Amino acid sequence: MAIITLTTDFGLKDHYVSAIKGAIYSYEPSSIIVDISHHISPFNYTEAAYIIKNAYQSFPEGTIHIIGVDSELSPENEHLAMLLDGHYFICANNGILSMLSSSILPEKLVTINIHNDLNDNFPVKNIFTKVATHIARGGNLDVIGKPFNKLKEVTNLSPVVNNTQDLIVGNVLYVDHYGNVVTNITKELIQTIAKGRDYTVLVRNYTFKTVYNAYSECVNFNIPKEKRQDDGKRLALFNANNNLEIAIYKSNLNTVGGASSLLGLSYRDTISVKFNS
Amino acid sequence: MAIITLTTDFGLKDHYVSAIKGAIYSYEPSSIIVDISHHISPFNYTEAAYIIKNAYQSFPEGTIHIIGVDSELSPENEHLAMLLDGHYFICANNGILSMLSSSILPEKLVTINIHNDLNDNFPVKNIFTKVATHIARGGNLDVIGKPFNKLKEVTNLSPVVNNTQDLIVGNVLYVDHYGNVVTNITKELIQTIAKGRDYTVLVRNYTFKTVYNAYSECVNFNIPKEKRQDDGKRLALFNANNNLEIAIYKSNLNTVGGASSLLGLSYRDTISVKFNS
Amino acid sequence: MAIITLTTDFGLKDHYVSAIKGAIYSYEPSSIIVDISHHISPFNYTEAAYIIKNAYQSFPEGTIHIIGVDSELSPENEHLAMLLDGHYFICANNGILSMLSSSILPEKLVTINIHNDLNDNFPVKNIFTKVATHIARGGNLDVIGKPFNKLKEVTNLSPVVNNTQDLIVGNVLYVDHYGNVVTNITKELIQTIAKGRDYTVLVRNYTFKTVYNAYSECVNFNIPKEKRQDDGKRLALFNANNNLEIAIYKSNLNTVGGASSLLGLSYRDTISVKFNS
Repeated sequence: MAIITLTTDFGLKDHYVSAIKGAIYSYEPSSIIVDISHHISPFNYTEAAYIIKNAYQSFPEGTIHIIGVDSELSPENEHLAMLLDGHYFICANNGILSMLSSSILPEKLVTINIHNDLNDNFPVKNIFTKVATHIARGGNLDVIGKPFNKLKEVTNLSPVVNNTQDLIVGNVLYVDHYGNVVTNITKELIQTIAKGRDYTVLVRNYTFKTVYNAYSECVNFNIPKEKRQDDGKRLALFNANNNLEIAIYKSNLNTVGGASSLLGLSYRDTISVKFNS
Repeated sequence: MAIITLTTDFGLKDHYVSAIKGAIYSYEPSSIIVDISHHISPFNYTEAAYIIKNAYQSFPEGTIHIIGVDSELSPENEHLAMLLDGHYFICANNGILSMLSSSILPEKLVTINIHNDLNDNFPVKNIFTKVATHIARGGNLDVIGKPFNKLKEVTNLSPVVNNTQDLIVGNVLYVDHYGNVVTNITKELIQTIAKGRDYTVLVRNYTFKTVYNAYSECVNFNIPKEKRQDDGKRLALFNANNNLEIAIYKSNLNTVGGASSLLGLSYRDTISVKFNS
Repeated sequence: MAIITLTTDFGLKDHYVSAIKGAIYSYEPSSIIVDISHHISPFNYTEAAYIIKNAYQSFPEGTIHIIGVDSELSPENEHLAMLLDGHYFICANNGILSMLSSSILPEKLVTINIHNDLNDNFPVKNIFTKVATHIARGGNLDVIGKPFNKLKEVTNLSPVVNNTQDLIVGNVLYVDHYGNVVTNITKELIQTIAKGRDYTVLVRNYTFKTVYNAYSECVNFNIPKEKRQDDGKRLALFNANNNLEIAIYKSNLNTVGGASSLLGLSYRDTISVKFNS
C-alpha cells in the first residue's frame, strides 16, 4: 500500500488528473493517491518546488511523488527519478529537482529509459505512473533508468548578507491563499547572523520589531475582546517551515485584502532584516 | 479503517491540505481521508458550520471530522474534541461547534491537552491529526483532553415569527455554487406555524405561491418541450435538508446568473413567509 | 474494492460532493472514490461527455462512473445505468450517455426503478450512490432497473468533408486549462481523407503546415537554448486522444494567454484542414 502523490499544473476541471489516477489504479490497485496541488501556475518551476518541498516531509518515508509540470521529454528535458531524504520524486529535468536537492544530496538519481514513444504529449500518464507503480511494488530505480548526474541548475534567489554582517536582504518566495507573504529568509539564517543581537524586519516603509511564532501572538489577550481591534494587524512571524513571513491577522484576499495586496508585495520583491549594533 | 474528513479555509493550491493528509497517513496508514471543503471563506465560521452540518450526516457513525478554520490556540480559542450525534468533531472553540450543537446536545466535549508547543501556527497538522488518528485507533477522548463546558456562543440569525402568527421573517443562510439561495426557514417551522393554512413566500418584490420539493416541479411536462421556456424560471423549494430555498431553474452564475445575482440576495438578507388568514 | 468515479457540476465549495462520498462509504466502506471533475459548467452536457470520455478509458474495466449533471428525475429525464466498453455509467437521460455511446454500442442499458420519492432534489446522493454500490458489490443491472432503449439523441457538431474530398471543416470541442483548443477533427479522419496527400490546417488567418505529435516538437533543439524564442509559438498537434489541437507553446491563460484567447477561439468555432491536390 504505497502512497503516490501528485503535483501538477493541470488544474482540476479537465480530465488530465483523473486519467493519471485511473492509470495508477490500473497498474497498482492498492495505491493510495494523494493530491498535493494541481493549481501550480503553468510551467512555474519555483512554485512547484516550493509547494512540494513544504509538503513531502509530512508524508511517510517511501512515499512516491509524481511532479507533472513541463514534463514533455526533449533533448533538454530528460525524465528523471530521484531518491532523496527517503522519498521518491519523478519529474522532468526542468529545475524542480535541483531546487529540491539544493540542501540535501540525492541518494540516487536516474534518467528513465522505458519509453516506447519519444513524442508522447502526456508522459505523466503514460510514463510517470509506470515508474511510480514500479517503485510502489518495491521495484528498483536501476531497472527503469540509468545513473544521471546533470541536474539542470536553477539560480533561485538567495538572501544576501552585507559585509558588515548587519543586514540581510531577502526576497518574497511565495504568496499563499491568505495573501501571506513567505520570504526566503530563514529563522536559522537570522539567528546565525544575529549572534544574540536584536533585529528589525523592514518591508516597504513598515518596520516590525518583533517576529512572532504564531499569528495570535500579536493579540493582547489581557485586554477584553470587545475593546481590541486585532483583525487587519500587520505582523511578522516564523511560519511552520521557519521562513520569515509577513502576514495580516485574519486576512481575506477577497474582502479586506492580505499582506500581498495591502503591502504591495509579490514574488521576488525584497524584504530586509536589520541588526542592531 | 476510520474515515477522517477535512473542512478548512486553506484552499487547494498551497501545501497545507496535503501536509495534513501526509501527517494523517504517517500516524495511521489505514485512514480513509475525505475532503468536505477547503474553500470556506477565510475565518467564516457560519459558512464552515453550514457546510459541515449538511455534509456530516451522510457519513457513517464514528466518522472523525477535522475542522481547520481559525485554529490557532489562544486563551480565547481552546482546542476541542466533541462527540455529537455519533460523530467526532475536532475544532477550535470559535463558534463552529456551538452552531453544530445548537439543536443536538454533545455526548462528550473535551479541551485537548496534548500540546508540546503553545505557539504553534499549524495546529491542524500538528495537533488535530494526532487527535483524529488517536480516535481512529479506538482511543478515548479522556486520554487527550479534559471535560469542557464553555462552548463559545454564537448568535446566528434565527427566523422570527410575529405575534399574530401569520408572518415568518427569515434570512439568507448560504448562497451555493449555482447561486441558489438557502434560507434559515425550515419546512418544519413553516408547517408548525401554518397549521394547515396556505402561505406565500415573499422575496424582494417577488411572490412565490408554491413551494416545490424538486427543481423540475416548476416545469409543465404536458406542454411539448419545444413550446416551453423553463430555463431561468424563479422558484421556491424545500431543499434536500428541508430549508426553504430560492432558485433559478438551470442557473449558471458565470453566464445567465443565479438567484443570488438576479434577485440581489446575499448572506443575512431577509425573506418572508406570509400565511393566509 | 470497486472504483467509483464522480463527474459533476457541483463545484468543490459546497457540501454536495462530500455528502455523496459519505453516502457511498456508508453503503460500501471498501469503495475507492475518484473525482473526475466537479467543475463541469452547470448543465453543460457536451463538456461533461467530453471530459468523461477522455478520462474513463484510463480506469480499469469494471469501474463505475457516476455522472451528476442535470440529474433530477422527470418524465423527460429518466435515471439510467449503462454498461459500455466494460465500464458502468450512472446518469440521467440528458444526452451525455448518447454522446458516450455514439461510436460504441452499450452492452446493457436500463432505466433505474428503485425510487421511493419521485420528487427528490438530490438524486445523485440518494439514488445514484445506491446503484453504484449495488454494482460495486457485484449486483446485476436487472435488479435495479428494466431494459431501456430511448437514449436522448443529441446533435453534437461533427466535422464535414466537402464533395471534392479536399477540405474538412471541423469545430472547437473544448478549451482546456492552458487555453489549448481541442477540435472534433481526429487524426484518423484526416488520414482517411488525405490518402497520402499533404495538408494544411487553417485557423482564422493562420496556417499550420505541420501537425506535431508533441508540443516540444515545435522547438529546434539544434539551436542553443539562449538563442531561441520558443515560448508563445503557435502550433497544431494531435493530442493524447488523437484529436487535432491548436496550442501555444508554454501558454498561461492568466498571464500571456493561450490559443483560445490569442486566436479568439471558443466552443463551436470552425477550424479547417485543406488537402493539397
